[in-house]
Amino acid sequence: MQTLPEKIILGIDPGTNVLGYGLIRCQQEKISLLSLGVVHLDKYKEQQIKLRKIFEKITHLIKHYQPDEVAIEAPFYGKNVQSMLKLGRAQGVAMVASSIKNLSVYEYAPKKIKQSITGNGNASKEQVAAMLKGILNFEKNTSYLDATDALAAALCHHFQRNNPVKTGNYKSWNDFIVNNPGKVKK
Amino acid sequence: MQTLPEKIILGIDPGTNVLGYGLIRCQQEKISLLSLGVVHLDKYKEQQIKLRKIFEKITHLIKHYQPDEVAIEAPFYGKNVQSMLKLGRAQGVAMVASSIKNLSVYEYAPKKIKQSITGNGNASKEQVAAMLKGILNFEKNTSYLDATDALAAALCHHFQRNNPVKTGNYKSWNDFIVNNPGKVKK
Repeated sequence: MQTLPEKIILGIDPGTNVLGYGLIRCQQEKISLLSLGVVHLDKYKEQQIKLRKIFEKITHLIKHYQPDEVAIEAPFYGKNVQSMLKLGRAQGVAMVASSIKNLSVYEYAPKKIKQSITGNGNASKEQVAAMLKGILNFEKNTSYLDATDALAAALCHHFQRNNPVKTGNYKSWNDFIVNNPGKVKK
Repeated sequence: MQTLPEKIILGIDPGTNVLGYGLIRCQQEKISLLSLGVVHLDKYKEQQIKLRKIFEKITHLIKHYQPDEVAIEAPFYGKNVQSMLKLGRAQGVAMVASSIKNLSVYEYAPKKIKQSITGNGNASKEQVAAMLKGILNFEKNTSYLDATDALAAALCHHFQRNNPVKTGNYKSWNDFIVNNPGKVKK
């Protein structure tokens, strides 16, 4: 396996009502959780304020944790053009807040993230959260649940750059563990 | 008519391939053109770079011209969710670049803008451009044509704040001129 330098990855799930974020430090085979949280945006009526809060939070996280790369959970499809427009605004703000700090932004579709973390592209939120808790060893907390999509995006990106070809090709989580023992936190 | 302070309005048409902008100074009855232009984004392959260019251009315009308010042409509907997502990203970036400089952002639907400028919500781009040239007295230039939607948004916002109730209720442009002689540049 190729030797990779230590990296801090910021994962973002930019929604219109909740902004989720998760930061991990990846030191070769060891992955540790730096931060995990959400910003509730539904309390702000104006979309302008919501977008500004997203920008400010991400700017703050970048300043505080100095991540090397950014991974975003970015759905590319939706039922309705109105909701896609709003979602696009939130995504655009998250992307530009990272980009102006010279960070590369990697986009991952939700299905790709689930596939990467659990081996199943149709896994439930709870299944993804359970897997993340196993890998990163953090306590169960309801407020964390909203942030796990962001954390999953960060971890998916780490797996991706570690094994750009193989990731996503495992038949199951067990299959993944067998092939990647170093990725499971001891 | 209510007396309004002098204001500089930045109009933005944030597209995914072209960013249009127009700046006007409104001194009561006199409206003058400060700047008008476009940034071609289609030459950048990565969307991340496009968004960053939008952010940087708007930040620069705000710093240079110190506008008081921002008006954005914001279509709320589209045929396709994919294009709405991309458009949303561009809009979100334009909005946040203004918002973090403490500028209020006003959104106007294309139909509303056309109605406000020409008296006809279904007017063509050329009709809008011709009207703008008459009001703001600028020379015909093909590169300007791409920026007229942005300029029209700025002017629409000026009309709106000048006559918040009446704007849009005129039957025709002539009807508008008769009721608002001061808005036509002598």
